[in-house]
Amino acid sequence: MSQVAANERRILVAVDEGEESIYALSWCLKNLIFENSKDTLILLYVKPPRAVYSAFDGTGYLFSTDVLASMDKYKEQMADTVIEKAKKLCNNLQNVEIKVGHGDPRDVICEMTQKLGADILVMGSHGYGLIKRALLGSVSNHCAQNANCPVLIVKKPT
Amino acid sequence: MSQVAANERRILVAVDEGEESIYALSWCLKNLIFENSKDTLILLYVKPPRAVYSAFDGTGYLFSTDVLASMDKYKEQMADTVIEKAKKLCNNLQNVEIKVGHGDPRDVICEMTQKLGADILVMGSHGYGLIKRALLGSVSNHCAQNANCPVLIVKKPT
Repeated sequence: MSQVAANERRILVAVDEGEESIYALSWCLKNLIFENSKDTLILLYVKPPRAVYSAFDGTGYLFSTDVLASMDKYKEQMADTVIEKAKKLCNNLQNVEIKVGHGDPRDVICEMTQKLGADILVMGSHGYGLIKRALLGSVSNHCAQNANCPVLIVKKPT
Repeated sequence: MSQVAANERRILVAVDEGEESIYALSWCLKNLIFENSKDTLILLYVKPPRAVYSAFDGTGYLFSTDVLASMDKYKEQMADTVIEKAKKLCNNLQNVEIKVGHGDPRDVICEMTQKLGADILVMGSHGYGLIKRALLGSVSNHCAQNANCPVLIVKKPT
């Protein structure tokens, strides 16, 4: 048995709606997790705050309550879809945990690595879509500098 | 045998004079490399270009030839020390390669991942010291965005 398999590590994977995070998860399953290991894989999905939606409206007016409500509903569905897709990929693993966070992904992911005692954080290099990335900055850069564990950034080959 | 051990991956570790890169290497040996695996570990040390030294002189004057020569000598010795230290850590591995590059670490490391067919790049989060980092920008951020393989950024716990 390798050193690692004996370690029972906690591997945190940040998933989002992008294909890149699903690729990152697959890469992690193939390259980091050992067969019959006691590692725990934690899937983390972060719902961005409403402020990010509001910024879509460039005119300075806020969206109506109706629009916000339907955006929230869409957000819920999106979270469910992403988590289902990610869970399916992990169906060979014994120890899978699901966590859903709320807020700025940069802060939530870094806080979660600490709170959940992650031994490694795995994420896509882009993450959170072009528009949100422009608004929030690079999530992966921020986490690489601020998370208190090693960070594996996986880019989908082009 | 796990999927990974069968993969014969090429793992590129960027090492430098900082303690963090040695910590990154240790982490990688413990968490990524399997016992009896056919993985190849490639240690890469990049000698920064003279331009980085010249910038130390804030007055606009260049250093004298003597000073540059002794800096070059120091640079050679530093490279040898770092590589020896890194090699010692890997003495249980069968397949270890040593590469020394010259130039801006950001460019050289990214080029090398491609040239050497690396499956993953491992590096410390700081790298290349405070002064050089200020001059060159964050090497790890740049590589995470530009290397054509997954990048594992390891920070030494504080």
